[in-house]
Amino acid sequence: MKLYEKLADEIGEAVRRGVFAAGERIPSVRQSSQQHGVSIKTVLHAYALLEGRGLIETRPQSGYFVREPAAAPQNERELAAPPAPASEVDVSRLVLSTLRSIRAHDAVPLGSPYPDPTLFPWRRINQYANAIARRHSSWNLIDDLPPGNPELIRQIARRYAENGVPVDPDEIIITLGATEAINLSLQAVAKPGDTVVVESPTYYAMLHAIERLGMRAIAVATHPTEGIDIEVLAQIIGEQKIAACMVMPNFQNPLGFQMPDERKKQLVDLLTGHDIPVIENDVYQELYFGEARPTTLKNFDTKGLVLHCASFSKSLTASYRIGWAMPGRYRPQVEKLKFLNTLTTPSVPQVAVADYLRQDGYDRHLRHVRKLYRQQARLMSAMVLRFFPSGTRISSPQGGYVLWVQMPERVDSMRLYQAALARGITVGPGYMFSTRNDFRYFIRLNYSYPWTAQTEAALRTLGGLVAEMA
Amino acid sequence: MKLYEKLADEIGEAVRRGVFAAGERIPSVRQSSQQHGVSIKTVLHAYALLEGRGLIETRPQSGYFVREPAAAPQNERELAAPPAPASEVDVSRLVLSTLRSIRAHDAVPLGSPYPDPTLFPWRRINQYANAIARRHSSWNLIDDLPPGNPELIRQIARRYAENGVPVDPDEIIITLGATEAINLSLQAVAKPGDTVVVESPTYYAMLHAIERLGMRAIAVATHPTEGIDIEVLAQIIGEQKIAACMVMPNFQNPLGFQMPDERKKQLVDLLTGHDIPVIENDVYQELYFGEARPTTLKNFDTKGLVLHCASFSKSLTASYRIGWAMPGRYRPQVEKLKFLNTLTTPSVPQVAVADYLRQDGYDRHLRHVRKLYRQQARLMSAMVLRFFPSGTRISSPQGGYVLWVQMPERVDSMRLYQAALARGITVGPGYMFSTRNDFRYFIRLNYSYPWTAQTEAALRTLGGLVAEMA
Repeated sequence: MKLYEKLADEIGEAVRRGVFAAGERIPSVRQSSQQHGVSIKTVLHAYALLEGRGLIETRPQSGYFVREPAAAPQNERELAAPPAPASEVDVSRLVLSTLRSIRAHDAVPLGSPYPDPTLFPWRRINQYANAIARRHSSWNLIDDLPPGNPELIRQIARRYAENGVPVDPDEIIITLGATEAINLSLQAVAKPGDTVVVESPTYYAMLHAIERLGMRAIAVATHPTEGIDIEVLAQIIGEQKIAACMVMPNFQNPLGFQMPDERKKQLVDLLTGHDIPVIENDVYQELYFGEARPTTLKNFDTKGLVLHCASFSKSLTASYRIGWAMPGRYRPQVEKLKFLNTLTTPSVPQVAVADYLRQDGYDRHLRHVRKLYRQQARLMSAMVLRFFPSGTRISSPQGGYVLWVQMPERVDSMRLYQAALARGITVGPGYMFSTRNDFRYFIRLNYSYPWTAQTEAALRTLGGLVAEMA
Repeated sequence: MKLYEKLADEIGEAVRRGVFAAGERIPSVRQSSQQHGVSIKTVLHAYALLEGRGLIETRPQSGYFVREPAAAPQNERELAAPPAPASEVDVSRLVLSTLRSIRAHDAVPLGSPYPDPTLFPWRRINQYANAIARRHSSWNLIDDLPPGNPELIRQIARRYAENGVPVDPDEIIITLGATEAINLSLQAVAKPGDTVVVESPTYYAMLHAIERLGMRAIAVATHPTEGIDIEVLAQIIGEQKIAACMVMPNFQNPLGFQMPDERKKQLVDLLTGHDIPVIENDVYQELYFGEARPTTLKNFDTKGLVLHCASFSKSLTASYRIGWAMPGRYRPQVEKLKFLNTLTTPSVPQVAVADYLRQDGYDRHLRHVRKLYRQQARLMSAMVLRFFPSGTRISSPQGGYVLWVQMPERVDSMRLYQAALARGITVGPGYMFSTRNDFRYFIRLNYSYPWTAQTEAALRTLGGLVAEMA
């Protein structure tokens, strides 16, 4: 365990034991540094970690404060032991079994990471697919080998250009969803033994992908509205060699924030200054609640160090599995890895999406979905605050379709997951978003599905379970 | 350089200089061992390497003989220097550019690794896809998450059962072509730093996949009709820790052999005895020239150590990208890796193939294709022997659609590739099949395309170029 982690655990424990009460100011960075005999840097890092865990918060010009009513637990020993430290297999099984439960039990899919498939223009896209199949008597996959179908690449580049993101069509490589784009990007920039920075919380599968490749992950505290802590990141970069950084600046999963432009620029500048590539996951780019599509890290990239990854899976069609990478200066490597990993992306889906983008009403579809998600985000936020016990905090999503819920500390999200499943409801346990169990009393809820009486009943049930466990 | 490699190079050089003439017996293993002061094992390994390079051959009960008319070159120095040792990027660029040349130049695609797409029942499969899209108003990708669409899995298992291969449907995982199945299988059984055995010749991309994952590849000499040299493999296993073995026992690419059943059994027994998993690439399984589908390594697997990988890309449809893995005891790992790598395989293609298999004439289609390939293999073999200069040797494919051609030693397949391309013909340079340039004077030719006057003219042109270079 690192020094700053130890310090964070120590202070966290003090908060839990009531040494520092809710709303109370904790010692300043300088004080803590003297008191514990550690560097200013170490304290800053520890405080950032505690902020990420939702235990403390910064107030401008005032310092750090204990964030929530953290009553000293009376009977800590009676709490069910948290599940053993989640092993690699356990968690990915957990993710898969969450998904399977949705399927098997026809459960209320609040735990799903995917958008409601009935919102996709499925019939229209399939009509294009069918037209393509009729037009050709055969199809040579050589035509759509990496980088991919040229017309699809043109259409993707056009959309970026229309939204003010500078894109060279020659940079785009079509992949099997953003999942493949991110994996290939990671392999292009880092090798076994390297260290990669991720956000905390972040999607667990990312951490696994890093470890599976023999790399090491460092999770950096990520602010619920500002994004990854750039100061802490700068410290880490000063201390050790970082091969890459993986972030989700727009509508982060699970926090939902849109990183402000100046923070995006700061991040890219910092990384560029140290020649560190950054993998940007921008799958929710089209699902903004604001006036216009947000900028991407690409907007601030001066040296080709941003590997931008995205897909149509959240906004147009998930089952076609069309994603892409714009890997900057790493384009040749990513193209080659795509070829080695899956050879090519299926042809008809590539061309059907290209035809849909060129000829159909994608923007109309998106306007509809964005309005719906914005409304449903408000509704679900209100219902969670109404039905969940006090001490519950929620994120303020600026786009996308997930809400991040911090429950009272004694609620174990795994136990909640199981109790909810028994009642035909799925939730996304916080365990999926960190390797260190930092978010064990958090859950992620999906609000993309149409709001029905069943949804409301499910949230009421969940709220009751949380109150019982709290 | 290893001792046996040094010895092989030394003897190879002696053959080239005419010390041992064509047809002449070279020193016995025992003699060589005494003469060079090395172990019997080392000599066996060196001879196997030379056999793999096509320089010598074994005759039962007689020993090793120089294999081809290897006239002492008069002016070795005048030969163009071979390209610098092929770097990783060069070769995968070479592969991609071979494929792109076929597309761009409308070239005679003798260099293509893929079957003629006009032979696929494209229209019929697309009709099933269209019917599925019409039947459903939307599609939830959760239904086809790993392991994959249940009906497709059932259909694949049924075909194996009908062909005498023992398969548990629960073992099958649908992937993006065999390419993904092989990559995931490799990651499931080996980790960075591990050593993996491959055949020589083997497809270069496999070697790259191994190296990219931070593993080490050892290429083992592979006999043109018997398959990987089991004796050499046993020696290597005795000397060092082997994490996995990757082979293609049926219609190996590029050699085209069908490994005899007793050799398959020996191979599995050897590996099982040492608890070493084996990844079996069986993509040509349906394209046999014999009476019945050959056995697979699965037939001889007693401990779940065979990870069998296959696809429909060579026999039914390439652009749908439907493959699968049957990973034996490694099933949980491969399923998880599939989820992390590409999440899921596109849904409609999965279901369309399942519907086609259940309702359409796959076996009729296969009978037609097999007959055609068998005829065209004979035709191309005859034409190569007719048009290419003496000293040319060819493989005897037992299935699949590629011919492996050994040209006179002074012909550099890269130079031939470029000269042929200038004349609108592609070939597969031998450089793609080894990292050690062992096959620089070999090419692979694709005979799946309909035999036309143009094909014959192309082979005549190629033969002329080879004769010039020889």
